[in-house]
Amino acid sequence: MSSTPSRRSLTIHNINPHVRAAKYAVRGELAIKSEEYRSKLKRGDPPTPPENPLPFDTVISANIGNPQQLDQKPITFFRQVLALLEHPALLNNEEVLKSTFGYKQDAIDRARWLLKEIQSVGAYSQSAGAPGIRQSVANFIARRDGFPSNKDDIYLSAGASSGVNTLLHIICSKPETGVLVPIPQYPLYTATLTILNARCVPYYLDESQAWSTELSIIKHAYDEAIRLGTDVRAIVVINPGNPTGASLSEKDVEDTIKFAAEKNLVIMADEVYQTNVFVGQFHSFKGALRRMQQREPGRYDAVELASLNSVSKGMVGECGHRAGYFELVGFDQQVQAEIYKFISIMLCPPVIGQCLLDLVVDPPKPGDPSFELYDEEYNSVRNGLKERAWALYQAFKEMEGVEVGEPQGSMYLFPTIAVSDKAVQAAKEADRTPDEFYCLCLLDATGICVVPGSGFGQKPGTLHLRTTFLAPGTDWVGRWTKFHKEFMDKYR
Amino acid sequence: MSSTPSRRSLTIHNINPHVRAAKYAVRGELAIKSEEYRSKLKRGDPPTPPENPLPFDTVISANIGNPQQLDQKPITFFRQVLALLEHPALLNNEEVLKSTFGYKQDAIDRARWLLKEIQSVGAYSQSAGAPGIRQSVANFIARRDGFPSNKDDIYLSAGASSGVNTLLHIICSKPETGVLVPIPQYPLYTATLTILNARCVPYYLDESQAWSTELSIIKHAYDEAIRLGTDVRAIVVINPGNPTGASLSEKDVEDTIKFAAEKNLVIMADEVYQTNVFVGQFHSFKGALRRMQQREPGRYDAVELASLNSVSKGMVGECGHRAGYFELVGFDQQVQAEIYKFISIMLCPPVIGQCLLDLVVDPPKPGDPSFELYDEEYNSVRNGLKERAWALYQAFKEMEGVEVGEPQGSMYLFPTIAVSDKAVQAAKEADRTPDEFYCLCLLDATGICVVPGSGFGQKPGTLHLRTTFLAPGTDWVGRWTKFHKEFMDKYR
Repeated sequence: MSSTPSRRSLTIHNINPHVRAAKYAVRGELAIKSEEYRSKLKRGDPPTPPENPLPFDTVISANIGNPQQLDQKPITFFRQVLALLEHPALLNNEEVLKSTFGYKQDAIDRARWLLKEIQSVGAYSQSAGAPGIRQSVANFIARRDGFPSNKDDIYLSAGASSGVNTLLHIICSKPETGVLVPIPQYPLYTATLTILNARCVPYYLDESQAWSTELSIIKHAYDEAIRLGTDVRAIVVINPGNPTGASLSEKDVEDTIKFAAEKNLVIMADEVYQTNVFVGQFHSFKGALRRMQQREPGRYDAVELASLNSVSKGMVGECGHRAGYFELVGFDQQVQAEIYKFISIMLCPPVIGQCLLDLVVDPPKPGDPSFELYDEEYNSVRNGLKERAWALYQAFKEMEGVEVGEPQGSMYLFPTIAVSDKAVQAAKEADRTPDEFYCLCLLDATGICVVPGSGFGQKPGTLHLRTTFLAPGTDWVGRWTKFHKEFMDKYR
Repeated sequence: MSSTPSRRSLTIHNINPHVRAAKYAVRGELAIKSEEYRSKLKRGDPPTPPENPLPFDTVISANIGNPQQLDQKPITFFRQVLALLEHPALLNNEEVLKSTFGYKQDAIDRARWLLKEIQSVGAYSQSAGAPGIRQSVANFIARRDGFPSNKDDIYLSAGASSGVNTLLHIICSKPETGVLVPIPQYPLYTATLTILNARCVPYYLDESQAWSTELSIIKHAYDEAIRLGTDVRAIVVINPGNPTGASLSEKDVEDTIKFAAEKNLVIMADEVYQTNVFVGQFHSFKGALRRMQQREPGRYDAVELASLNSVSKGMVGECGHRAGYFELVGFDQQVQAEIYKFISIMLCPPVIGQCLLDLVVDPPKPGDPSFELYDEEYNSVRNGLKERAWALYQAFKEMEGVEVGEPQGSMYLFPTIAVSDKAVQAAKEADRTPDEFYCLCLLDATGICVVPGSGFGQKPGTLHLRTTFLAPGTDWVGRWTKFHKEFMDKYR
């Protein structure tokens, strides 16, 4: 070995090639640039050159579903309890908590119960999460679906992302392993499969049918993968969809389960937007599977389902707490033991996040002292999201060359954008795809950060972008409308 | 493909073989069994059979450094601030916080500052952590070492484990990639290397020299690995050691840096126990490297160092919050961009944990209103740990066949145990290694859970176990002493 002192060990050419190949546009170049703009504005840097200030005074991060970065307020009950867990000495004066800080007895009681379950938010829990909290999750699932759930099949995680990472680590056993992934998709799936050196088997959602999930398309993608020597082992379904917002009908859920049963595929049901539904209805895979098992005893017993949920979405929006869970249905016990070992290496999910999950799956009920405020806050968030979605939708409808369906759910709109040949040419000259080029121009002109459709996958020849509809007010929508008109005129 | 309905997709034989091969004894079979005992005791299950109750009334989890699961109290200042961050409405009445709940102005001010930095603990931060908090970490490192640190080289993480996972993901590029790892070691390293299908290149610490790190042994291990075709790319140093507690001398640190420079190795310095030092002194790799660079300009410019730290250890012990950081020194910018992308896929570390890290690296200073209590609590934890370590050490010294050095640091003792041939035979009949067998008997007889030395690696033919010295009181030590005598008598 040489001892040349000026040589580095790690270069872009010799690090893990699978990490290098992974793409994750949601927090990619555009997001990084938007953060630079944000800190420039925060520092109040003089514009450089001085005659050329930033043409906006705020950055709007519409690239990622991060409600509390915008103006969504956390739900009071949740945060009242979490404060007590962080500093149990506050419990030494319940009267003052009530009289001065508006605590109700149920918040105080819940904090005491959780402290008994976890001992301290500063202590590691069991690797899969505190048993009492896993039981709360199991109870929630049982109420939701009408079928029992076992706490030993519940694995708490640091957000749903960490659960997806765990499951794909178990499933991907060799380079030929394939996982069916909807396109467009949340890029966590493709990025993780790339890092694991496994194959993404894309199946396109049908934009002409409001981004529905079509079994014939899945079958075609599966057959094609088999033909190419792929060992297809699992199917991902994002329901409601990210970035599309579309909810699967019960029939689509059942068809997917039947297909998975026939082809021996693990179903990974990403159900983190289960309460963010404006159009249609959420049907859980667990509930549908249990009903099918009841109807045809024996036939679907071997179906393996992993269903994921999170506190980051819904009306909760507690992304920063990194909490979620997955439930395993029909998994082999030895495989579950390997999953337990795998998550043990990272010790446990954040314990205060576990406690928040307990509150989210078991919130105040009618009659409980904290219910009224909880209910009011919950509905206010829900209505606010719907209003914002529709305001943005209306604005898109009036933009030239933009097509978008009614908001269906999740936190996103995913419009199609048709741009001129001249814009395509300008993009090419800037070494960008046309959707990247549009999004970059939008950011530079307005401070609005969105994600090009290529970050999620889109049919060749189509262009999209994903934007959250979380930002409040209409000012930013106005900025966008104005930019769009100028962009279209410039490249006409 | 068959459509047999009763066949599962995932079995122990077809899941990811690298996950299956990974070993992580710290939370393995013994830990799982101890949790079963714990919940049995909690539920108050009638003994089965009734005449055969558990021979203990508490489980002592000495398998993992988890201070707050035992009786270590969190530091008041930290938790006061975290409560305000979780429920900022508490800030609406500062007077009551002070008069009733003992808050000082600096706790309130810090909470207000952190809320400005993060907006909400429920919002995602930047992927590497909130910029203001990374700056606090950089300031801490600069104060500690006397050399500047740049916030853009600081990456906050969900505990140090997550940082190790990130770094090894980047470094391990092919099956021949090798990483030098001290033996005994914390098994996170070997487990992660196994999952990444890379090679652990073990170098033994010298038990006869109080577990010192010997360069000649490292060189020998390196040469042997090269001979076997291993592409050695990095060296892990755990300083102070886990499970050994030994601190490297400044000369050992320098020798390691020189060796890494000569062989082009990335240094991964696991420095999570940097304040848990009883014997010797902690010398940071960053400080040593900068001093060497000053002494011999140019010679060590290309050294790549990743230094890891955590809020789980030290006098803080906030394991459940899953917070930590790593600092990169000398890394290529393109490589850092890949690291940023990799961590972005999991979005961000827990935000309340980031805030706790801010408090840990920038605690109350002399003269601050909260200093007195902070200082008292900090010293009380430090003295408590030392006392417990020495009490356990004294007990081990009196046990037949047990050899252990003075407690040096970290949270562990790692005694050698000599057992009789008869015990070895009994272990073989139980399909166990002798150290596993001893630890299993200890758990079943006393409820004390420790980890066999094989979980960390040990020289062939030697037997050890790792125990934390965190449990309070002397009752559990008494139980152990009694068990040990009976075990030795039984297999004499």
